[in-house]
Amino acid sequence: MRRHEFRYDPGLCCDSSIMFDSILQYLDWFGICIFALSGTLVASRKRMDVVGFAFLGCVTGIGGGTVRDVLLGSLPVFWVKQPAYVITCLLVSCTAFFLVHHVRSRLRLLLWCDAVGLALFSVTGAATGVASGAGPTIAIVMGVATATFGGVIRDMLGGEIPIILRREIYVTAALLGAATFATFLALGASRDAALVAGFLAAFALRAAAIVLGLSLPVFSGTGATNDE
Amino acid sequence: MRRHEFRYDPGLCCDSSIMFDSILQYLDWFGICIFALSGTLVASRKRMDVVGFAFLGCVTGIGGGTVRDVLLGSLPVFWVKQPAYVITCLLVSCTAFFLVHHVRSRLRLLLWCDAVGLALFSVTGAATGVASGAGPTIAIVMGVATATFGGVIRDMLGGEIPIILRREIYVTAALLGAATFATFLALGASRDAALVAGFLAAFALRAAAIVLGLSLPVFSGTGATNDE
Amino acid sequence: MRRHEFRYDPGLCCDSSIMFDSILQYLDWFGICIFALSGTLVASRKRMDVVGFAFLGCVTGIGGGTVRDVLLGSLPVFWVKQPAYVITCLLVSCTAFFLVHHVRSRLRLLLWCDAVGLALFSVTGAATGVASGAGPTIAIVMGVATATFGGVIRDMLGGEIPIILRREIYVTAALLGAATFATFLALGASRDAALVAGFLAAFALRAAAIVLGLSLPVFSGTGATNDE
Repeated sequence: MRRHEFRYDPGLCCDSSIMFDSILQYLDWFGICIFALSGTLVASRKRMDVVGFAFLGCVTGIGGGTVRDVLLGSLPVFWVKQPAYVITCLLVSCTAFFLVHHVRSRLRLLLWCDAVGLALFSVTGAATGVASGAGPTIAIVMGVATATFGGVIRDMLGGEIPIILRREIYVTAALLGAATFATFLALGASRDAALVAGFLAAFALRAAAIVLGLSLPVFSGTGATNDE
Repeated sequence: MRRHEFRYDPGLCCDSSIMFDSILQYLDWFGICIFALSGTLVASRKRMDVVGFAFLGCVTGIGGGTVRDVLLGSLPVFWVKQPAYVITCLLVSCTAFFLVHHVRSRLRLLLWCDAVGLALFSVTGAATGVASGAGPTIAIVMGVATATFGGVIRDMLGGEIPIILRREIYVTAALLGAATFATFLALGASRDAALVAGFLAAFALRAAAIVLGLSLPVFSGTGATNDE
Repeated sequence: MRRHEFRYDPGLCCDSSIMFDSILQYLDWFGICIFALSGTLVASRKRMDVVGFAFLGCVTGIGGGTVRDVLLGSLPVFWVKQPAYVITCLLVSCTAFFLVHHVRSRLRLLLWCDAVGLALFSVTGAATGVASGAGPTIAIVMGVATATFGGVIRDMLGGEIPIILRREIYVTAALLGAATFATFLALGASRDAALVAGFLAAFALRAAAIVLGLSLPVFSGTGATNDE
């Protein structure tokens, strides 16, 4: 939507034909909701109030895309142009505040929401980079940045150990998704096919990492503890 | 001031008639000073040197407004256009370095400075959002972001537990201030009346939270410790 | 380079005559490499995989300049205009992944890389500020911000205690470098002479701080532990 609609719209977006005109918008919108949910799950672990849920939900849902827009100079950022994104995050957050205690294992749900959001944003971030005129290198970097920084900000503000420091494959999955998207585009595939292929690649790898504890070979020297 | 003065001014602002032409500038300027002071109080807790005081003082004083300007695309950020803000933060920080050891309870002073700054920035942030052409939703979000991110950056750089994670009402007070401002404006009140009303609402709520330990009902499920 | 080349170049920069047309570009480029290396050293302490090395290497190498460009409104940020910077960080990071285990004391190497990068970015950041039309105050602030924020982001994402919180002189060295550069310029020296003088001043002070444990007098009151 923010590719087709550069006019500054200070009110709510009501033109759903513009908002959902392609699979890119669907994926982006779904990624924002699922990352917002992951933010509320961190809020639930810290026993925050409903405003804390809304704060962490919004920051996580729109954080990755905000970093991307700032780096690309696409300002004001997307949710200032389209406040519907913020409203959506608020609705997700408030709903989660009242319903999420029914979930048995919230840490597990957090991991899976984060995985879906990571895979979605790795391709939508790369697609936004391409739409802004960037080449493949920068498009892939934008995919990785959009996918990872929402979670980074969530973990920092929520006082959690950053998910990027965990042993299992994480940033690599975002990289695979964005690179798959860029490769499909370069090979002449349609954008929609490239989006789906990249998402599936990223999600499959991250899911395997969660379920099987997959990790890449780590640095072969000694770690921090026995370092000087 | 940055609403009336878009010309890039790389030197010092000396035209005090422009700088203080309204209550908005006074409030904004006072908020920056009081947040800078809160930054130096964190620096004092970490026993930093005078440059550390200046660094944390500046980052805290101008951090919230910097985030707001970046999100709105109002670049370069306000203090690049008007270095007087930076100079003011430096003066506050250096003064604090030499005088703050006279204060008996610096943690208490930190809480109250933060409370005044939070209330001030919640309304000046929202007013800046309105001045940039944003609707009420985004104006309120800008008020909350301006009010909270200075403290967030201060606590992160200073190695403190983020104040937004505390149990007592915090983000809610910023939200109340910004929403009160927006409501007064929508009801036809003058901007100055809306500023004062919003400030009083935010400060009263945060002060009550500090004094009485007020908090909203928190998430009803279990917290992080006994989660899976 | 980004001062002489405002055209948006979405591909790789291949015109090395533009990229290395002055000592400023050399210093900036070297600073990015050495900060990228410092990022990989943190990654090695956390025993990350090769993608983690690349992530922390890139974020640290280009982080300070990214903050500077955003504050100045010079968007998109420099490495989006010139992806060669990102590629360089990736090459440094991957090389470090395979070679850095030969280094005996990686913590010591980290400190020295950080010191060289700090000194380099304090002058190149200030020079970029001057080139953008800012006065001496803002130029010095940009020097300090460019020099310190790469390390700040590295330590936050890497879960290290921020280097700016250490007792020895750190931010002060960046301040000295940027101020020396600005003073030399104001006294009529050539930019290249000012760059070299500022770099030497900053590096000498930081090196002395590391070797001799130099620190400025710290705040004279009590610290956080026995505060209320």
